Amino acid sequence: MDFCFDNVKLNGGFLKEKSELNLNTTIYAVYDKFKKTGRFDAFDCKWKEDSEDIPMPHFFWDSDVAKWIEGASYIIAKHPRKDLEEIIEKVIDSIEKTQWDDGYFNIYFTTVAPDKRFSDRNCHELYCAGHLMEAAVAYYYATGKDRFLRLMEKYAELINRVFVTEHSAEFATPGHEEIEIALMRMYRCTGKSLYLDMCDYFLSARGNNDKDKYIMDGMYENYNQSDRPVRELESAEGHAVRAMYLYTAMADYSKETGDEKMFKACQRLFDDTVNSKMYITGGIGSTHIGEAFTIPYDLPDETAYAETCASIGLMFFAQKMLEAEPKGIYGDIVEKAIYNGMISGLSLDGKSFFYENPLSIDTDNRKKFTCTAASERYPMTVRAEVFSCSCCPPNLNRVLASFERFIYHTDKNIWFVDQYCDSEYSDGNIKITQKTDYPLSGSISLSVVGAKEIALRIPSWCDNFTVNADYSAKDGYIYIKNPQNIELRLEMKPVLYTANASVSDCANKAALMLGPVVYCAEGIDNHVKLHRIYLSKDLNAEIKYSNEFMLNTIEADGYIRKSSESLYEPLTEEFEVQRIKLIPYGAFANRGETDMKVWLNYR
Amino acid sequence: MDFCFDNVKLNGGFLKEKSELNLNTTIYAVYDKFKKTGRFDAFDCKWKEDSEDIPMPHFFWDSDVAKWIEGASYIIAKHPRKDLEEIIEKVIDSIEKTQWDDGYFNIYFTTVAPDKRFSDRNCHELYCAGHLMEAAVAYYYATGKDRFLRLMEKYAELINRVFVTEHSAEFATPGHEEIEIALMRMYRCTGKSLYLDMCDYFLSARGNNDKDKYIMDGMYENYNQSDRPVRELESAEGHAVRAMYLYTAMADYSKETGDEKMFKACQRLFDDTVNSKMYITGGIGSTHIGEAFTIPYDLPDETAYAETCASIGLMFFAQKMLEAEPKGIYGDIVEKAIYNGMISGLSLDGKSFFYENPLSIDTDNRKKFTCTAASERYPMTVRAEVFSCSCCPPNLNRVLASFERFIYHTDKNIWFVDQYCDSEYSDGNIKITQKTDYPLSGSISLSVVGAKEIALRIPSWCDNFTVNADYSAKDGYIYIKNPQNIELRLEMKPVLYTANASVSDCANKAALMLGPVVYCAEGIDNHVKLHRIYLSKDLNAEIKYSNEFMLNTIEADGYIRKSSESLYEPLTEEFEVQRIKLIPYGAFANRGETDMKVWLNYR
Repeated sequence: MDFCFDNVKLNGGFLKEKSELNLNTTIYAVYDKFKKTGRFDAFDCKWKEDSEDIPMPHFFWDSDVAKWIEGASYIIAKHPRKDLEEIIEKVIDSIEKTQWDDGYFNIYFTTVAPDKRFSDRNCHELYCAGHLMEAAVAYYYATGKDRFLRLMEKYAELINRVFVTEHSAEFATPGHEEIEIALMRMYRCTGKSLYLDMCDYFLSARGNNDKDKYIMDGMYENYNQSDRPVRELESAEGHAVRAMYLYTAMADYSKETGDEKMFKACQRLFDDTVNSKMYITGGIGSTHIGEAFTIPYDLPDETAYAETCASIGLMFFAQKMLEAEPKGIYGDIVEKAIYNGMISGLSLDGKSFFYENPLSIDTDNRKKFTCTAASERYPMTVRAEVFSCSCCPPNLNRVLASFERFIYHTDKNIWFVDQYCDSEYSDGNIKITQKTDYPLSGSISLSVVGAKEIALRIPSWCDNFTVNADYSAKDGYIYIKNPQNIELRLEMKPVLYTANASVSDCANKAALMLGPVVYCAEGIDNHVKLHRIYLSKDLNAEIKYSNEFMLNTIEADGYIRKSSESLYEPLTEEFEVQRIKLIPYGAFANRGETDMKVWLNYR
Repeated sequence: MDFCFDNVKLNGGFLKEKSELNLNTTIYAVYDKFKKTGRFDAFDCKWKEDSEDIPMPHFFWDSDVAKWIEGASYIIAKHPRKDLEEIIEKVIDSIEKTQWDDGYFNIYFTTVAPDKRFSDRNCHELYCAGHLMEAAVAYYYATGKDRFLRLMEKYAELINRVFVTEHSAEFATPGHEEIEIALMRMYRCTGKSLYLDMCDYFLSARGNNDKDKYIMDGMYENYNQSDRPVRELESAEGHAVRAMYLYTAMADYSKETGDEKMFKACQRLFDDTVNSKMYITGGIGSTHIGEAFTIPYDLPDETAYAETCASIGLMFFAQKMLEAEPKGIYGDIVEKAIYNGMISGLSLDGKSFFYENPLSIDTDNRKKFTCTAASERYPMTVRAEVFSCSCCPPNLNRVLASFERFIYHTDKNIWFVDQYCDSEYSDGNIKITQKTDYPLSGSISLSVVGAKEIALRIPSWCDNFTVNADYSAKDGYIYIKNPQNIELRLEMKPVLYTANASVSDCANKAALMLGPVVYCAEGIDNHVKLHRIYLSKDLNAEIKYSNEFMLNTIEADGYIRKSSESLYEPLTEEFEVQRIKLIPYGAFANRGETDMKVWLNYR
């Protein structure tokens, strides 16, 4: 694989459990829904104006199936799955049949608007192409079969001719980034510099050409990061998923080519994202209007958009940054998303999904309009098995099937342990074995064979650690030379966090974390409106493993504010003592519709 | 006048200052805007389909001018104003000329849709009729001239024939209540039982007939209180102004007729309003969707609708309840609205207006969407001189011109002092003189001549008072027999208030009050984002009179939460000491656009 994946094996723990949930359940759940809604059959391109039993394909359907194929390919790479392989082969058959002679392939345009190809920047054509290329690369790595890859190479060559050579398309760069990531993977997979050049073209032309002036009704140029050349971007703006996919490609490209100006832009964009525009869960993009970033420190909890795909995009971006420069913060952010804002997108049974991941639910607010059917907009309170814009479910498929890519990386003969997880890395020369129940505890035993130096990430949530070896520390990693048997103990205890004082929505509230895991209170456990809860600063916490959540739950000391009869009265502070139950945020909303809060009062 | 008004004179203080602001400025400011927008000339009914220089009248324009006339009439009653009288006479001339032979009068239907009269319950016909009747009554009381009253009597007779006798209109009761209040006033003014009967008809038929089933697109029957017979209403629901106007008429009618079932409904509705659906400012109707009540304890501060007209309606309702049963809570609520949620509707210069009265402004939230022109809905941050739906400005005209009606009332030979204010009551037999700087302090000197018993309201904000006379206390009043020179001292000090624990939006926050006046912090005074402010529970307050605000300002001890560099960090509580400046809520947003908050953190 073009990232550290093949040599890694998950042996146990949370990541392996979620990975197995995906390969046993989620990959099939998504397949079933996509099959039922016509997404798979759409690759036959049989829809016609008068079709009655064939639904008209949407212009992002290629990408839905492509992401699923990419996820299924990662599964196949580790576990023989004939059934998944057959499904994929059938899709490739269809692509082979319906691909245009010049290489063009897109379900929507082929069937619905063949004379309109490459004319509308907002129709996700290059986005779909990118996802198909990523799928083709993954399938090739997984199986060694190159038919899909060759079809996509042919398509890529057409795209190169139309966009890079002839400039004959009606737009210069895609309305939704993605192909840039894919071209880097095509380049690494095939070794052909054409794809690197194409990636350079799409990155460099972005916000830097005369064709892409029209964005979308009501949207400004920063909505899809077209407001200036990418090397000059200063802050994370616009549609959050688009932004993350662009930044991921920029990080990858600049590492590959040594483009310092672009890498500096990546650093600025990363810092801006995680220091002023990210929920404590790793969710990003705080508003549903444009699914976008807003201003710094605007992080409302109840209306948080925090799209699952955006957290996944943030993981990709952070991982590329980490591979470009070994700073612990990048691994910290990958970890934060894994255990919180990404995994909250999936139900515990692996079958239903959140698109949006709010940090507070007050079910009363969904019932507050008594004289009208009109309402205000709130995120859903329970996960759904399918939604029409179904980008998140197959994105989860491909991430859950490839946790292995985030755990180790290597740079200049140093082997970096980026994520802790019961697992092993083995490439013939080097073998690293982690034994740990992380993130249930911070005890990690590593046995290392063959590596001259390893680097272990010390997570930013960890104030104290011990390790049975000499080390030097830098940027969130400790470096150990000639490692053999390493015992790392990360002190892990429940800690209350505050947000920066500029975040009005978190003012005077605290969130509980245990290691990388963010906690929330749910109404179903606490039997009182959650705004009445005060966590005790002393906590006096009891930590219990939960089979249901596959993580620890926490009970802590707290108080419930007593209520008066009257609506307003002189301030008194009367409380009842009550133990407060908290569960991992990533597992919220799995027991029916109930209130939920991450940010709680404390005293 | 049909309420205690003629015999009362304001001698000084806040109410007199606001009253004079109205008669010198606001009445003219509203006239100018209404003149410019064509509302006055519309009474000539000259608009035609092809009119180019005459704007098409809106179906609520009659009511805008009528409320203005009512306000101007109260001014004329106390201060000769030939200019205002001339304006009114000109309107009456127009009405006389354009009234239909059968008595019908309505600008909109006469010009725009003459064949559609009495066919659309949502076109405010009877609402306009009611306001014209109230204006006619007020003008008659003020001047003794009965031309306007006679025209409206003729209209009322038509309405009686169409609605009560023939049932020939396409609806049974008005979509927006108001005529019920007016008919009670017509009844008292003329002594004709027809109007009492008509009021009974419109109240009793409401929610109790087969014609009014269609409410409005998307609205349920409780939107305009048509979901059940009014005597069975249990809770304050629907459009807040509509509700208050209905309840006001119900209270008035039930007091007049001894209708106990209806009065009990009024008690329930009042209790529900003030115990679960009222902002601490006396604002009601928490959502802009339907301008309506929502569920109990749903009182968001930043998006509060709290229409100025709704607070005015609450004052009317409370005053009618007070006149029906002498309970201090009714006077408390009138007072709360006067000094807070009603007066906040008017700028300090008397020329511009708030329709909505939020309890928090975060100006950043108006700028948070950076990639799109779309936005979320927030109340305006500065008052406007005119708006197209201009119900609030002339409603302020009529309330500010008639504060006298809220100060005293009499029942069974007891003279009730309901509001404290430098003023006198004098009816030939009885004279009550109040000397006070209330609400700057709680010291009130009363001299009473001729009354055998007086009752003084002890406001619910007051924990301690002294009075130099024997008294018996009941329901928020103290009763003093054979009063002469009474010295009442209401202890008035700054007090922090909490909201009922069920109000999620006020959780863990406090609001400062000094006597009846609610305070707020503004960004312009405190130079920090207001969510970072913590009031000290000790307050250590310094109270200073402000000429600008005509009320006291308060400086109190407080803290500013220090900010970290990072977005999230383990909880520390570091504060800078800072004196916090607070101004009366009613005077917020008079110094340009700035942040504002009523509910503040405390520690």
